[in-house]
Amino acid sequence: MTTLQSKWEELADIKDELAARDWFMGTSGNLAIKVSNEPLQFLVTASGKDKKKRTPEDFLLVNASGDLVEESNLKPSAETLLHCAIYEKTSSGCSLHVHTVANNVISELYGDKGKIDFQGQELIKAFGLWEEDDILSIPIIPNYAHIPHLAEAFKSHILADKGAVLIRNHGITVWGKDGFEAKKLLEACEFLFQYQLALHQIK
Amino acid sequence: MTTLQSKWEELADIKDELAARDWFMGTSGNLAIKVSNEPLQFLVTASGKDKKKRTPEDFLLVNASGDLVEESNLKPSAETLLHCAIYEKTSSGCSLHVHTVANNVISELYGDKGKIDFQGQELIKAFGLWEEDDILSIPIIPNYAHIPHLAEAFKSHILADKGAVLIRNHGITVWGKDGFEAKKLLEACEFLFQYQLALHQIK
Amino acid sequence: MTTLQSKWEELADIKDELAARDWFMGTSGNLAIKVSNEPLQFLVTASGKDKKKRTPEDFLLVNASGDLVEESNLKPSAETLLHCAIYEKTSSGCSLHVHTVANNVISELYGDKGKIDFQGQELIKAFGLWEEDDILSIPIIPNYAHIPHLAEAFKSHILADKGAVLIRNHGITVWGKDGFEAKKLLEACEFLFQYQLALHQIK
Amino acid sequence: MTTLQSKWEELADIKDELAARDWFMGTSGNLAIKVSNEPLQFLVTASGKDKKKRTPEDFLLVNASGDLVEESNLKPSAETLLHCAIYEKTSSGCSLHVHTVANNVISELYGDKGKIDFQGQELIKAFGLWEEDDILSIPIIPNYAHIPHLAEAFKSHILADKGAVLIRNHGITVWGKDGFEAKKLLEACEFLFQYQLALHQIK
Repeated sequence: MTTLQSKWEELADIKDELAARDWFMGTSGNLAIKVSNEPLQFLVTASGKDKKKRTPEDFLLVNASGDLVEESNLKPSAETLLHCAIYEKTSSGCSLHVHTVANNVISELYGDKGKIDFQGQELIKAFGLWEEDDILSIPIIPNYAHIPHLAEAFKSHILADKGAVLIRNHGITVWGKDGFEAKKLLEACEFLFQYQLALHQIK
Repeated sequence: MTTLQSKWEELADIKDELAARDWFMGTSGNLAIKVSNEPLQFLVTASGKDKKKRTPEDFLLVNASGDLVEESNLKPSAETLLHCAIYEKTSSGCSLHVHTVANNVISELYGDKGKIDFQGQELIKAFGLWEEDDILSIPIIPNYAHIPHLAEAFKSHILADKGAVLIRNHGITVWGKDGFEAKKLLEACEFLFQYQLALHQIK
Repeated sequence: MTTLQSKWEELADIKDELAARDWFMGTSGNLAIKVSNEPLQFLVTASGKDKKKRTPEDFLLVNASGDLVEESNLKPSAETLLHCAIYEKTSSGCSLHVHTVANNVISELYGDKGKIDFQGQELIKAFGLWEEDDILSIPIIPNYAHIPHLAEAFKSHILADKGAVLIRNHGITVWGKDGFEAKKLLEACEFLFQYQLALHQIK
Repeated sequence: MTTLQSKWEELADIKDELAARDWFMGTSGNLAIKVSNEPLQFLVTASGKDKKKRTPEDFLLVNASGDLVEESNLKPSAETLLHCAIYEKTSSGCSLHVHTVANNVISELYGDKGKIDFQGQELIKAFGLWEEDDILSIPIIPNYAHIPHLAEAFKSHILADKGAVLIRNHGITVWGKDGFEAKKLLEACEFLFQYQLALHQIK
């Protein structure tokens, strides 16, 4: 299997798993996985496809600018520029963007603060935070309708090879060294958001 | 495959997917897909079937008035008239009616206002609303027990080739150009309702 | 296929479907289906089995008193007497008892009132209530630890060939003419309980 | 099949079932099953594996101290010491540790009290509590980052061959005579936590 094929399969498996959880409601969400560094090329979800189905047209190969490497009648996701920013600024290998009810509600509740912090939660270890007083801080940026504008705001929070950024009422984007790590971070964030939401529903 | 067969499969796939989410609790819900324009004929779910199962008796072909095209010992869904209204007034190709806890609770909470509005939510793009200040407004009509009466109230909100109407404590009906779009709209609405419900549970 | 076999399959299918929803948490719940009227015999879930698995030992044939028709090293569910009461007093063919978080919380919230009423909800049509002002009233009885005592309290609410009774902090029992109707009633109740719970979480 | 193989399969089946419920979010959680008493050896989940997948590397055989019985390039779960404590102090055969939103929220809400009590709930029968006034009391210990320290605190609550302990914001650990019983206890606890949480969301 070529690298392209194995990366395709890795991303397709992740897509299946997230689709089974209904994390792509209303055709929202987009996923990317790096295939090569020189030149920088990555696979990204094609626009307007049903992510519950697994087909040979689910992903498109694009370059560092998000342009198609080969001609296609399909278009890469409208938010490909956000994935470009991640691969440009870090050595991470996979980036995932999904909408869940919990991540959108948290982004709205904490949007004015610009971030949400978690401390004392076992799950923050997913981000490599192992000390008792470590804090996981997830930034929240405004949801600019203009994608290049959004990408600029997003870029200022890409500070390490793994991370997570919430866009207000527009889901979360996480990135990590490979599909396995990116998925782990995504799940840890979702767990923490659901936890926080449940606490809010009580207090 | 004939158009009839391919439309049957398209609707059966949607039924399977929605059934897996338990969106047909208590045998509620009904689905329709257009097969031909001249004469207008569409498939609609047969009444009183278990929607968790996929059988050759799940759908019936009916005409513009909702009458059976061929004799059958089965009856079309009691709410077939609502689907008739959609195909009569628009060029849409698929219409879906389901009950979820979230859509029923929202219909009750906002029922007196007669509508619920969403703004600043990424998911409203599913309805083609891309501007930052766009508003998705979903009307809510009373749940008249008399179906022709209900169909009349419903009709007054069928204003475009895609749309959504909540019936108070009686689920949602969405329609779009084909099964893919109708399902996308249905999911976007459900996501927005769950989001709104979670906000209410906090405030 | 004999009646015994076909009824076994009907009940096993229902068990699979409810197990997939996690409605038998902690090995709770029990199910029954009538096989013959003269003599009265029905299948009931064996005690202490994993309901996520489908095996030839899942159900046992018992008589009107709940005693085994054939020797077995397995025991019928401890709550078999409740199913006996249903088949003794009605002509219904299937009875289902499950615990869900929603049905237990509702049984606690409305336990002192002894019942919960639903009106204006489309889903009450599952019980054959079609008029605009019809009310679905589900009785709630105390959870007596002594099963014959519990069965007596339960019996006083078996008033028709289909129905539903909540036991406080001990789930719901529904019955209907066959497996299809019993499951329909069970789902309608669960939907209504989740709806009511969501309203309480807001107000 | 050897005992090792049959115990491996028993634990793998449990892992599949819990993974399907998303009870291992962010690669959290770990599972163990006893294989032999003399010498004491048990299988425990390998660290850093995707629990959604079933592979020949999912579990490792360790001794009473939690050390590998055979060389491997994999490492046993960082929390293996907690499982060691259970097999050292009891005759139980299986122990399960998982994070759910409900168990973490309950551990936070009741953490200062050091325990949560359940009474009058049918589901406590899973723990062998059959009398009307029986109380299920689940201890909650602080989440010490230092695992040997955590194991010490945990040990003081291992008082019988079956039981459950919450670690604050760090999930639950249950143990029972075999996989079937451990899973039953785990499900009963989760049900009770979700129930309690729902009550809190109302009051």
